[in-house]
Amino acid sequence: MRKGEHTRQEIIRKAAPIFNQRGYDGAALSDLMRATGLEKGGIYRHFSSKQALAAEAFDYAWQQTVNARIQDLDTISNTVDRLKKLIANFVERRGIIPGGCPLLNTAIDTDDGNSVLRERACKALRGWRSHLTSIVSAGIKAREIRPKTDAKKLAALIISSLEGAVMVYRLERNEEALRAVQSHLERYLETELRLPAKNQNKN
Amino acid sequence: MRKGEHTRQEIIRKAAPIFNQRGYDGAALSDLMRATGLEKGGIYRHFSSKQALAAEAFDYAWQQTVNARIQDLDTISNTVDRLKKLIANFVERRGIIPGGCPLLNTAIDTDDGNSVLRERACKALRGWRSHLTSIVSAGIKAREIRPKTDAKKLAALIISSLEGAVMVYRLERNEEALRAVQSHLERYLETELRLPAKNQNKN
Repeated sequence: MRKGEHTRQEIIRKAAPIFNQRGYDGAALSDLMRATGLEKGGIYRHFSSKQALAAEAFDYAWQQTVNARIQDLDTISNTVDRLKKLIANFVERRGIIPGGCPLLNTAIDTDDGNSVLRERACKALRGWRSHLTSIVSAGIKAREIRPKTDAKKLAALIISSLEGAVMVYRLERNEEALRAVQSHLERYLETELRLPAKNQNKN
Repeated sequence: MRKGEHTRQEIIRKAAPIFNQRGYDGAALSDLMRATGLEKGGIYRHFSSKQALAAEAFDYAWQQTVNARIQDLDTISNTVDRLKKLIANFVERRGIIPGGCPLLNTAIDTDDGNSVLRERACKALRGWRSHLTSIVSAGIKAREIRPKTDAKKLAALIISSLEGAVMVYRLERNEEALRAVQSHLERYLETELRLPAKNQNKN
């Protein structure tokens, strides 16, 4: 990696927690300078604007968050168990980037404006939903999940309930809502989604 | 109402959508001046600080939101039906204060700081949860709801899933997640909470 590119990546990495904790308007240039150890010119040599830096910082924060949530997922062959692991990872592997879920923060921060950041958040949401629906589709095909399951509705339920629980967690600083949502979803997956073994594909 | 108090209330009413849409840091004095038609001195004669105004604006926005959500609730005697109506009101009576749910916005905006506003959001959350748990407790007493129902967990599920769906709605500007959560919760209330009529108290 060239030195310029290395510096650029370091700025993104150090700016990410600041934008995630303070929001776009709340992230002051002085905070960014302190975190990166660079002057204004040293930062903006690498980015055309604050918005451009915030967008890169969001993508970085989201990628780190996704990596934590999908950790160990590929070792689990059963799709219902994979969904349960994804939910458990969401609940347990928080705080990868300080400030809470970057998607939730950026969505709320930009829903009334800031179209560049908003588009990044939309893309992140689409990616997460598509990951969930692809597990459900694979599960239906493998006869592990009931064929009439509406994958998109289920994904909406999982995403909404977990993200809302993060809001409660962030506000009250205790895990109760996250754990309540996790146990509800786990039970729902077991009772309403999982196909009994006798119906499963034996091939 | 004295003229000074009237002006104070008008400032709160007009500042509420600005804080709710732009967040605490994003709400500029120039926005507040434009919305109220007052100069800086005219606004801050009534409030000791921006934070004091933001706190009053949040309380106002939250009260308006709660009023919309509990509308027509007292006409419904059955507690399960009352929970369903509360959920339907949440989904259908949005946008009372432009910018989305004031609790969600303020929670995310203040979770890493701003302790005055954060405390207001905590109080709002406690109030909403307590409203939900009191309906469940009444339902258990009236033998309309299964006696082993964990009211606090149920409240956490309802609040988390609805608030998370608002985030998705605000980002994608379509109702799919809200409707998915509503139908999931309605079905859950019918199948897992509602006591069959034969078990209900006939007194």
